[in-house]
Amino acid sequence: MDIATVVGILSSFGLVAAAIAMGSGLELFINLPSLMIVVGGTLGATMINYPLKEVLGVFKIVQNALLVKTVGVRELITRFVELANKARREGILSLESEMEGLKDEFFQKGLQLSIDGLEPEQIREIMETELDFVRNRHQLGAEVFTTMGTFAPAMGMIGTLIGLVQMLQSMDDPSSIGPSMAVALLTTFYGSLLANIVCMPIAGKLRTRSKEETLAKEMTIQGVISLSKGENPRVLEQKLLAFLPVKQR
Amino acid sequence: MDIATVVGILSSFGLVAAAIAMGSGLELFINLPSLMIVVGGTLGATMINYPLKEVLGVFKIVQNALLVKTVGVRELITRFVELANKARREGILSLESEMEGLKDEFFQKGLQLSIDGLEPEQIREIMETELDFVRNRHQLGAEVFTTMGTFAPAMGMIGTLIGLVQMLQSMDDPSSIGPSMAVALLTTFYGSLLANIVCMPIAGKLRTRSKEETLAKEMTIQGVISLSKGENPRVLEQKLLAFLPVKQR
Amino acid sequence: MDIATVVGILSSFGLVAAAIAMGSGLELFINLPSLMIVVGGTLGATMINYPLKEVLGVFKIVQNALLVKTVGVRELITRFVELANKARREGILSLESEMEGLKDEFFQKGLQLSIDGLEPEQIREIMETELDFVRNRHQLGAEVFTTMGTFAPAMGMIGTLIGLVQMLQSMDDPSSIGPSMAVALLTTFYGSLLANIVCMPIAGKLRTRSKEETLAKEMTIQGVISLSKGENPRVLEQKLLAFLPVKQR
Amino acid sequence: MDIATVVGILSSFGLVAAAIAMGSGLELFINLPSLMIVVGGTLGATMINYPLKEVLGVFKIVQNALLVKTVGVRELITRFVELANKARREGILSLESEMEGLKDEFFQKGLQLSIDGLEPEQIREIMETELDFVRNRHQLGAEVFTTMGTFAPAMGMIGTLIGLVQMLQSMDDPSSIGPSMAVALLTTFYGSLLANIVCMPIAGKLRTRSKEETLAKEMTIQGVISLSKGENPRVLEQKLLAFLPVKQR
Amino acid sequence: MDIATVVGILSSFGLVAAAIAMGSGLELFINLPSLMIVVGGTLGATMINYPLKEVLGVFKIVQNALLVKTVGVRELITRFVELANKARREGILSLESEMEGLKDEFFQKGLQLSIDGLEPEQIREIMETELDFVRNRHQLGAEVFTTMGTFAPAMGMIGTLIGLVQMLQSMDDPSSIGPSMAVALLTTFYGSLLANIVCMPIAGKLRTRSKEETLAKEMTIQGVISLSKGENPRVLEQKLLAFLPVKQR
Repeated sequence: MDIATVVGILSSFGLVAAAIAMGSGLELFINLPSLMIVVGGTLGATMINYPLKEVLGVFKIVQNALLVKTVGVRELITRFVELANKARREGILSLESEMEGLKDEFFQKGLQLSIDGLEPEQIREIMETELDFVRNRHQLGAEVFTTMGTFAPAMGMIGTLIGLVQMLQSMDDPSSIGPSMAVALLTTFYGSLLANIVCMPIAGKLRTRSKEETLAKEMTIQGVISLSKGENPRVLEQKLLAFLPVKQR
Repeated sequence: MDIATVVGILSSFGLVAAAIAMGSGLELFINLPSLMIVVGGTLGATMINYPLKEVLGVFKIVQNALLVKTVGVRELITRFVELANKARREGILSLESEMEGLKDEFFQKGLQLSIDGLEPEQIREIMETELDFVRNRHQLGAEVFTTMGTFAPAMGMIGTLIGLVQMLQSMDDPSSIGPSMAVALLTTFYGSLLANIVCMPIAGKLRTRSKEETLAKEMTIQGVISLSKGENPRVLEQKLLAFLPVKQR
Repeated sequence: MDIATVVGILSSFGLVAAAIAMGSGLELFINLPSLMIVVGGTLGATMINYPLKEVLGVFKIVQNALLVKTVGVRELITRFVELANKARREGILSLESEMEGLKDEFFQKGLQLSIDGLEPEQIREIMETELDFVRNRHQLGAEVFTTMGTFAPAMGMIGTLIGLVQMLQSMDDPSSIGPSMAVALLTTFYGSLLANIVCMPIAGKLRTRSKEETLAKEMTIQGVISLSKGENPRVLEQKLLAFLPVKQR
Repeated sequence: MDIATVVGILSSFGLVAAAIAMGSGLELFINLPSLMIVVGGTLGATMINYPLKEVLGVFKIVQNALLVKTVGVRELITRFVELANKARREGILSLESEMEGLKDEFFQKGLQLSIDGLEPEQIREIMETELDFVRNRHQLGAEVFTTMGTFAPAMGMIGTLIGLVQMLQSMDDPSSIGPSMAVALLTTFYGSLLANIVCMPIAGKLRTRSKEETLAKEMTIQGVISLSKGENPRVLEQKLLAFLPVKQR
Repeated sequence: MDIATVVGILSSFGLVAAAIAMGSGLELFINLPSLMIVVGGTLGATMINYPLKEVLGVFKIVQNALLVKTVGVRELITRFVELANKARREGILSLESEMEGLKDEFFQKGLQLSIDGLEPEQIREIMETELDFVRNRHQLGAEVFTTMGTFAPAMGMIGTLIGLVQMLQSMDDPSSIGPSMAVALLTTFYGSLLANIVCMPIAGKLRTRSKEETLAKEMTIQGVISLSKGENPRVLEQKLLAFLPVKQR
C-alpha cells in the first residue's frame, strides 16, 4: 500500500470526521436508510450498466492497485542486467533456473518465450497483445468508478428529495422540521462523500496506476527482446534507461 | 435476462421504495400530473429530436439487450471447431445440414455465404458491412437514452417551477404550503429517478452490450472465413482464442 | 411535417399546459417582461455570436427541417432504375425530358451534368463540393440552436435574479412576497422551457435531418455516376441498395 | 461595426435594463463592491492564467472584430480580376502602382512577393505561415474570453457568499435582511451578466470572425498565386468562386 | 515573477478582502475546521489520485512557473548568433569556454553534444526526447491542479452540509441559526476561492508556460543543430526568426 494513498485516505476521512466531531457527535451523521439509498442505488445503477462479472472484477483491480506495490523500474533494470550477464556467460537456457525468483508473471512469461527460442518479433507481438488486455482492464476499472462517481450524487439528491417531500407533508410539529431536514440532507452528504472521496480519486488512481504499469511492462518487453537477441548487457541497460526521465537515470 | 440487470433494478428501485416506506406511505409519492410532465415531456422532446421510427425501434433494442442472452464466446469457439471438423471430413457442403441448429442469424448468413463458395474477401466485406449496421443501431440506442436522460431532469425542474409558482400565488392558507411544495418537488424527484435509475444505466448497458456483440460478431467473421478457406480446426481454434483475454482462454 | 415532430410538440407543450391548467389558470404563467428578457436576451446573445445573415438563414433551415419531407430512399432507388432503363433504351440524352419531374434540385443538377457529358470523376467532385456546403449549413444550424439552448437558461436566471432583488428590497407587505417571487421564477421557467422543449430538440432534429439528407445525397451522387457510366439498371440498383440497412432492402 | 452585433448588444442590455426599470429604479442594481469583485476578480484570475501581453492584446483583437468590417469576399474577387487584367496587359510589374490602394496588409504583402518574382510555392509557404499566426491569435482571443466567461459566475458566487455570511452574522434587525440579501444577490447577477451577455457571445464572435477571415485570406493566397503564375483572369475568377457556397456565386 | 501574475493575485485576493472589509471584519471569514476540510480534503483526494512523488514535484513546477522568468526568445536568438560567429572564426571547440555563461541547462547540454561532435540527427533525437519529458511534466502539473480545482468545491459543499445538518439538529435558540449558517457557508466559500482563484488559474498558467517553454526549447534545438552543421550566422538567425510571429521579428 503506497504512502500517498494512506495519507490521502487518512487526511480526507479523518478531517471530515474531525470537523464533525468538533461540532457534534458522529452518531448524528449515521442514518441507515440514507446509506442504503446512496450505496445500494449507486451499486444498482452500476450493475445495470456493466456485466456482473466486470463489476466484481473491478474490486479485485482496486485491491491490487491499492495494496500491491508496482515493481520499481530501477530494480527491473538491475534484474535485466543480471540476467543478460548470466545469459552471456552461460547461454540463454541457463535463465531457466532464474524463473522461480520472478514475482511478476508477465516477466516470467516473456522470459519463457525467450528461452523457448521464439523470434523477437513473435515475442513482441504476443507480449503486446497481453499488454493491451491489461490496459483495457485498467481502463474499464477507471470507467466503472467514474460512472459510480456520477451516480452517487444523483442518488444522494433522490434521497434528499424523498426526505423533503415527507417532511413537507407533515409539518404539524414545527420543532421536528429541523431534525427531519437534517436527516434529509444526510443523503446528499453521503452521495457527495462517496463520489469525491472514494469513487473519483480511485478512478484517478487506476488511471495513474495503469500508466505506471504500462511503462514497466513496455520496459519488460524491450528487455526480454534484448535478451533473446543476446545483446550486450550495457546496450540493454542503455535501452531501458531511455524509458526514464533524465533526472531519474 | 442477465443477473446483474435483475440485481441492479431490484436494488435500485427496491431501495428507493424501502427508504420511502420507512418514513411514510408510498402513495405520498404518486402524483399523476408530475408523472405526465416528466415522462410525457421527455418522450416528446425525444420525438422532436429523433424520427419516430427510430424512437420506436429503440425499445426493441432495449428489450433485446435486457432479455436475450448473448451467445457465449466459448460456445461459439466449440461450435466452429465442430463445424471445421465436419467440413474437413465431409466437405464444406455437408454444413448445409447444420444451418438449422444455429440460432444466430448472423452466423447462419455467414455460413451460407461460405457454402455458396464466395471468396473469403467477399465474405468479409459483406459481413463487416452488416456488422457496421448493427453497431450503428446500438450506438443510436445508447444516444437516444442519453438524450432522454438529459431531458428528464430538465422536465422535472420545469414541473417543479410550475408547482412553486402556483403555490406562491396563493399562500393564504399557511398550512397548505408544505404539502403544495412537497407535490412540486415530486416532479424533480421523478425526473431524477427516470434519468439516473432508468435512462443512464440503460444507455450504459447498450454500450456494453454493443461491445460484447461486436466481439462475438468479429469472432464469427473470422471463423466463417477460416471455414471457407478450409483451415485446420486447431488453427481455427487458435485464431478465435486470440480474441479472448489470457485468463479466459 | 413528420409525425414524430407533431407528436413531440403536442405532447411536450400540451402536457405542460395541461399540468398548469390542473392547478391554476394559464394566465398566471404569462408575464411579458420575463418573456422579453428570455427570448430577447437569448436572441441578442446569439446575434453577437453569429453574423446576422446566418441567424436569419437558420430559421429557413428549421422551417425546411420541420415541414419539408425528405425524399424516401426507396423512391429514390425506383426513380434511378426507371431513368437507367430509359437511358439504356433511348440514350442518356432522352433523360432531358425527365428533368421537369424532379423536385429535388440536387438530383436535377446532377442529371444535367450527366446529360452534358462530363466525366464521372468531374461529376463526383462538383456534387461532393455542394454536398459539403449543405452539410456545413445544417451543422451551423444545429450549432446555433445549441448556443441558444445554452443562453436561454442563463437569461432565465438573470431575470429571476432581477425579480428577487426587487422583491427583497421592498418586503413591507408580506402578502406580496409570494406573488412577487412567483413572477421572478417565471423567467427561469421560460428559460428552461425554451432550452429544453424548443432549442435542444430542434438542434437534435437538425443533426438527425442532416444525416438523412447526407445519405440521400450520397445515393444521388452514386446513382448519377452510374447513369453517366451507362451501367446496367440492375447493377445500379444493387449499388444503391448497399446504402441501406439489410432489413430495409 | 456589423449590424448583428449592434442589434445583439442593444437587445440584450436594453431588455435587461427595461425589465429592471419596469419594476424599480435602475440605481437599485448598482453596487460598487459587487462590481469590483466580479470584474476585478475575473480579470485577476485571467491575468494569472495568461501572460499580460496576451491579455492586453486580446482587447485589440476584440476591437477589430467588433468595429472593422471584413473585406467582402465578392469585392476581393472583383479586385483580383482587375489586377489580373492589368497584369495581362501591362505586365506584373505594373501592379506596383496598385499597392497604395489596398487596405488589407496581407493582400499588399502577398502582391509585393508576387511582384518581387518569388516562386508560387515560396509565396504560398510564406503566406500560409502568416495565416497560421493570425488564426492562432484569434483562437487565443476566443479562449481568453471563454476562460473569463467561466470565472465570472464563480466570482459572482464568491461575492454572494460573502454577502450572505455577513448578513447571517448580524440578523438583529429583521427589516434589513431583505435588502442585505438583495445586495448579496447582485454579485451573482453581475457574474451571470458578464459571462452570458459579454464574454461568451464575444468568444463566439471571435470564432466566427476567425472563420471568415481565414476564408478571405485563403482566397487572397490563391489569388496572389494565380497572379504570379500569370493565369487567365477568367480562370482566376473561377478558382476564387469555388470558395463560395453555390447560391452566393 | 512576471507582472501579470502579481497583478492577478493582488487584484483577485485584494478585491475579495476589500469587499469583505467594506461590510465587516475579516476575522468573520476565518474558520479553522472549514479550512481543514477544504484544504486537507482536497489534498487528500489528490494524494489518492496521484503518486506522492508527483504531487510534491508539482509544487516545484509551480514555483518555477511563477518565479523563474523564461528566457526571452529575442535574447536566445542574439546568443545563438554570437555563438555562431565565434564558431565560424575560431572553430566549434572554442564554444567550450562559453558554456559557463549559459544559465539554461537544456541549452548547455545541447551545446555540449554539439562540441562533442555528434551527428545533427542524433542531437535532435536526444534533445527532443528530453523536450518530451519536460512537456509531460508540465502537462501533469496542469492536470493535478485541474483535479484539485474539481475537488475543492466538492469539499466545500461537504463541509457546508456538515454545518447545516448540525445546525438543523439543534435549533432551540433561534438567534444562533444565522451565525451557524454563516459558518456553514464559509466552507463553500473557501472551496470556491481555492478552485477559482488558486487552482484553475495556476493550471492555466502551467499550460501557457508549457507552450512558451516548448517554443524556446524548439528554437534551442534548431539553433544547436545549425551550430553543429556550421551554418552561416545569418542563415541561423533567419531560421530562428521563423519561429516568431511577424510583428515580433
